[in-house]
Amino acid sequence: MINMTNGIDLANVKDIVSKIVSAHQIQNVAFVGCGASSSELYPGFYLLKDEAKQLRPFHFTASEFNNDTPAWLGENTVVITASLGGTTPETVHANTVAKQHGATVVSVTHNGNSPLTEEADYVIVHGFEANYAAKLEKMGYVMDLALELMNQVEGYEHYDAAIDGFEKIFDLSESAAQHCTAFAKKFGHDYKDAPVIYYMSSGASMKVAYSSSICLMMEMQWVNSGSFHAGEFFHGPFEITDKDVPFVLLMNDGKTRSVDARALTFLDRFQAKTAVVDAKDYGLGSAIAPEVVTYFNPFVHTAVFRVYAEALAEERQHPLTLRRYMWKLQY
Amino acid sequence: MINMTNGIDLANVKDIVSKIVSAHQIQNVAFVGCGASSSELYPGFYLLKDEAKQLRPFHFTASEFNNDTPAWLGENTVVITASLGGTTPETVHANTVAKQHGATVVSVTHNGNSPLTEEADYVIVHGFEANYAAKLEKMGYVMDLALELMNQVEGYEHYDAAIDGFEKIFDLSESAAQHCTAFAKKFGHDYKDAPVIYYMSSGASMKVAYSSSICLMMEMQWVNSGSFHAGEFFHGPFEITDKDVPFVLLMNDGKTRSVDARALTFLDRFQAKTAVVDAKDYGLGSAIAPEVVTYFNPFVHTAVFRVYAEALAEERQHPLTLRRYMWKLQY
Repeated sequence: MINMTNGIDLANVKDIVSKIVSAHQIQNVAFVGCGASSSELYPGFYLLKDEAKQLRPFHFTASEFNNDTPAWLGENTVVITASLGGTTPETVHANTVAKQHGATVVSVTHNGNSPLTEEADYVIVHGFEANYAAKLEKMGYVMDLALELMNQVEGYEHYDAAIDGFEKIFDLSESAAQHCTAFAKKFGHDYKDAPVIYYMSSGASMKVAYSSSICLMMEMQWVNSGSFHAGEFFHGPFEITDKDVPFVLLMNDGKTRSVDARALTFLDRFQAKTAVVDAKDYGLGSAIAPEVVTYFNPFVHTAVFRVYAEALAEERQHPLTLRRYMWKLQY
Repeated sequence: MINMTNGIDLANVKDIVSKIVSAHQIQNVAFVGCGASSSELYPGFYLLKDEAKQLRPFHFTASEFNNDTPAWLGENTVVITASLGGTTPETVHANTVAKQHGATVVSVTHNGNSPLTEEADYVIVHGFEANYAAKLEKMGYVMDLALELMNQVEGYEHYDAAIDGFEKIFDLSESAAQHCTAFAKKFGHDYKDAPVIYYMSSGASMKVAYSSSICLMMEMQWVNSGSFHAGEFFHGPFEITDKDVPFVLLMNDGKTRSVDARALTFLDRFQAKTAVVDAKDYGLGSAIAPEVVTYFNPFVHTAVFRVYAEALAEERQHPLTLRRYMWKLQY
């Protein structure tokens, strides 16, 4: 047992999943949320997409789940929803849709008294304010729910390695966030006047690139942005590459590293303006077993790039909390 | 029987799938490709994601499939790959990976003598040059493969409605492309100096927005661009909205129409520069049965927006065929 100061309650997740699988024959797992929460659901989905041999995993933005509700939604489905404040209307409504169809709902939120908890069968309350590690708890709980569902329904040979990963990843990510300040400051300085910033990653971190683009840049900085998979870069986006065009590459340790490395080689060759956040630089591959390291990249990327975004906001004198529409208008 | 002048060979697809399902217990269907082809695989994936109650559908960019090959890949898997010229290296390699694991491979390409056909168990050659309808054949064959797999493995109650849709959608889309010239010309004129163009859609057309962004804009026009789901718009990207910020909305008929309509209402409210390509304007909902209309939107959007992109290229005096890296350099 390591002396863990940050982390999630793995025993609670195991217990919730035990109750679900003893009551239902689970076949489908739907990950449903919006925006940043949708991205934080993705690593759990990705784990099942890669490793599950029986369960059927699906990842939805809540409005699509609600309006084009899948034909298979029913008693043999677990719907995992997530929302920081627990008030996102589409996600709250997804719980209603799921319950109307007889599914089991697990909701992960920072607010244990929020509307999201009302129809959920199980509620997991995650941290947020304490530090960078706490901001990863939502993603961690969702991925651990996926792990437990897979292991308890069909067995998973790397289960112990994944549990060991969960015991290390929060402290490792917090440490990464604490040690990237100089790089973050340089990023803020170099990118403060960028008219557009592109984000790339691959594997389980693909949606960290996505949320960095649509949330941290477009929403919180009003900076133009786009995101795409590092493997897709060569099938379209790379034609925009030129000297000083601004990119951020969230580079993975594990199975998709070569995909990211190929994109980096191209960016460097044409002197694009490239900021690399490499999970390997923060010791991910030394801490986590190779069989599961691929799945833990999003934790390091999310923690470190949060510090980068804070440095950019500081340089631009545009707080990450500033909005013109969100929380202000009805829409 | 309608007097169809455009379309795909439905009998051939039915026959291929019969042979596959009589030889294997199919459990998994993987749609694997890159760039525009990846997007053209999406409607087939989307149909199964929505409607299949037993099959497990997965959508991959080829580099990820090759490097982070899923644990379930095997004899009970059909891998559907697509590439226009049949030479995309990652997709050709995906066929090798699939065969190494014992999966059945169906490849859809315009070039029946290309590398993509070498390891495929079944090859479907699609049209391209003839007209706008021919450019939809790749997407059509993939979606019909998905339909036949679902129907033959587990049954699908709206199979007849979907087949009827395939008999109508190519002529309808060709007609749509032929009748949008005036709107396309206005789009070309209005957007020719746009510094960035954002693309939104939902449902089965989500990846038409994506490929319009990464291929038609970034690759073929060197115009900055991003894309996102119309439902995700309100969870990040909408904060970039302002008077004259350029958006393209590919509006769906069917189940996700209200999601698109909500985004349009917001864009109009803040006088964003908005071009709408609405499948309803081209008679999609009158031609196709309501049970399946949702799945046929990508055909109309792809055909019509191709004309829009041609008009933009003409106005910008930047041919859609111009490249600086693709087909020129080794990378």
